[in-house]
Amino acid sequence: MPNSRIIKAMPPERSELEARIKQFQAQMRDCGVDLSLLRQNADLYYFTGTVQDAHLLIPADGPPLFLVWRVYERALEESPLENIEYLPRLKKLPDILRAFGLKDISCLGLEMDVLPASLFLYYTKEIWPDVPVKDITHQVRLTRCRKSAWELSCIEEACRQISSVIEDMPLILKPGINELELAAEIEARLRCLGHPGYLRMRGWNQELGVGQIISGPQGSWPAWTNTPAGGRGINSAYGQGATDRIIDHGEPVNIDLGGSVNGYVCDQTRPFCIGRPPERLQEAFSLVASLLKELEGNLAPGIRSSVLYDLALDFVKGTGFENGFMGWGRNQVRFIGHGLGIEIDEYPFISRGNSMVLEKGMILALEPKIALDGIGLIGLEDTYLITADGARRLTLGPQELTIL
Amino acid sequence: MPNSRIIKAMPPERSELEARIKQFQAQMRDCGVDLSLLRQNADLYYFTGTVQDAHLLIPADGPPLFLVWRVYERALEESPLENIEYLPRLKKLPDILRAFGLKDISCLGLEMDVLPASLFLYYTKEIWPDVPVKDITHQVRLTRCRKSAWELSCIEEACRQISSVIEDMPLILKPGINELELAAEIEARLRCLGHPGYLRMRGWNQELGVGQIISGPQGSWPAWTNTPAGGRGINSAYGQGATDRIIDHGEPVNIDLGGSVNGYVCDQTRPFCIGRPPERLQEAFSLVASLLKELEGNLAPGIRSSVLYDLALDFVKGTGFENGFMGWGRNQVRFIGHGLGIEIDEYPFISRGNSMVLEKGMILALEPKIALDGIGLIGLEDTYLITADGARRLTLGPQELTIL
Repeated sequence: MPNSRIIKAMPPERSELEARIKQFQAQMRDCGVDLSLLRQNADLYYFTGTVQDAHLLIPADGPPLFLVWRVYERALEESPLENIEYLPRLKKLPDILRAFGLKDISCLGLEMDVLPASLFLYYTKEIWPDVPVKDITHQVRLTRCRKSAWELSCIEEACRQISSVIEDMPLILKPGINELELAAEIEARLRCLGHPGYLRMRGWNQELGVGQIISGPQGSWPAWTNTPAGGRGINSAYGQGATDRIIDHGEPVNIDLGGSVNGYVCDQTRPFCIGRPPERLQEAFSLVASLLKELEGNLAPGIRSSVLYDLALDFVKGTGFENGFMGWGRNQVRFIGHGLGIEIDEYPFISRGNSMVLEKGMILALEPKIALDGIGLIGLEDTYLITADGARRLTLGPQELTIL
Repeated sequence: MPNSRIIKAMPPERSELEARIKQFQAQMRDCGVDLSLLRQNADLYYFTGTVQDAHLLIPADGPPLFLVWRVYERALEESPLENIEYLPRLKKLPDILRAFGLKDISCLGLEMDVLPASLFLYYTKEIWPDVPVKDITHQVRLTRCRKSAWELSCIEEACRQISSVIEDMPLILKPGINELELAAEIEARLRCLGHPGYLRMRGWNQELGVGQIISGPQGSWPAWTNTPAGGRGINSAYGQGATDRIIDHGEPVNIDLGGSVNGYVCDQTRPFCIGRPPERLQEAFSLVASLLKELEGNLAPGIRSSVLYDLALDFVKGTGFENGFMGWGRNQVRFIGHGLGIEIDEYPFISRGNSMVLEKGMILALEPKIALDGIGLIGLEDTYLITADGARRLTLGPQELTIL
């Protein structure tokens, strides 16, 4: 086990949080919302610099109010925001809102994709009855997908975190090891580097540890998660990822990992093989590698997400690999990439029919993958920053199928 | 790294799932719900034996319909239920419901504490407009808190999983190690034993890896999570659990772990110390140990949760440790135990004012813990089965403060 050395960047400054809030407020005004209430961990971290059990109230104009139940003292210490108040109990919410002029509003914005129904009803029936409500999730996600220099620096550190583990793979992936043992080694190394041990996902019911470590034919099995493949998993309660199957010679070993530094993630997949892989696996890998190059060459501000998706489908068409591209048949996922930041499923989604246009400062992962019948999953994944005139790869190391 | 050996029990049988559904249906009828729609991972696993992206429709009478989008084939393989149908897209839902006679209903039950607002609105406005809705969460949780022999066997295996790691602590907890390195070692061992690497929690915004590994004064810091203490965590995005601080001599090291077998968890906390702990820490531990014995002696069918909670508070009163009992001051949590099963936060909660009465077959953890200023967190936690005339401890090993 290596010694730990946490990779850390500096925490966000107040000016950075204020800039984010300003961007979001402009969008609130555009859609006629005069107060947003945010409660979800990832959204709270984005706008306050800390995760607490709290209400973040952002008016369309003026400074936000960060109302913290648990832990108020840590919010004061960890968040650079100015207006941080204590919320002793939920019952006090109306009084506090009134005192801050946030009770009489004309349209309320809520994170409708993640806020549980019971809380939604509480806020809309008890706290702001008869006030029209809008789902502000799209605006939150739009704001969050344009990354700052500080966010980029965190994600770059996350890339170095994963890179150091990928580099160690020849030391770890030995004949006779099984997937769980491999996962344990990889995860332990990441933990020592300050990885929290799990990644945040926005999608409801989506779950992930630090990634997916899958091998052989079962590695191409679909899972309930919105991923090209999932693997079998240890049991039917956790039907994705590593199992106790021993990795055999010539099988694809799919190492799909999310780094995490200061709450910001990257996403990288590298394939490995103990001994010589079958011809068809090598052909599929060549296709995936050239497709990724092709997609990289098209990443630039102004390009529509769906154009990239269609390009990928066209690229694979007629190669004989289209049936397993991004998963099997009807379990194929309808994307070839996704944005990431605090969550691993952020805007922009590079998906079918998606009209979102790429912008400078967006950060996203591209992950062309192919499921091969009787062989397994083969693919690559890298994280990219959209630059002024193209894109820059953030994840490190060669885009190879490594044969050990 | 030890070799992996997944601890597995047999999957649930159809008769077991049918018994669960029957129990739940009786409760649905009691509260006038004639159709429940369940969608959350843990609830799906409980009633179907698998986690898929799916709709589980349980009428008040008759067999349920398991409508699976992703992955239908795995649902067929993994779930012993009879009526498993494919849902090609959400738009088809009304037609399918009509075909199965589930469209015209008089009261709909939903998991309102976990179902996101946008899905809640979709079902109540688009699919079942003008149908009264009830929150069926309480009934689901009530059903789930009475464990079967099979569920007990899974939790017993989870206890063995944790026990084997606790036994290894003298090999792992060496002078000079830091919390993250310790966590990495522990988690790696659990992964090799088939632990998924994270635990499911029902509470919104609650997060957990495999538990909390915290030491020294910072170990008593409160976190946003609903736990007696949380520790500092690696950064303000993940402000709980292990950090890169090196564990010093004489400091409390709090090892709080959840095992996981077949999707079922246990919960156990053991304190360790490298070298001689300070007098005050030993006094606090003696108090915690005798309180746990006292609580154990009172665990039995028929006792009210709040009585156990009050008993604990009375026990600590006047000892000089009451200020840090179950956390500091206003960040004290208002419980001393919780049920567990598929999630680590199940019924019954042993909490202030809670009128739930313990029943034979319930499984819960008791976790008296004390935060000591300048010293850290000291506590014990064990998992218990309520038996016909008392309780049986399921977690293994001595209830000690181990001095290494």
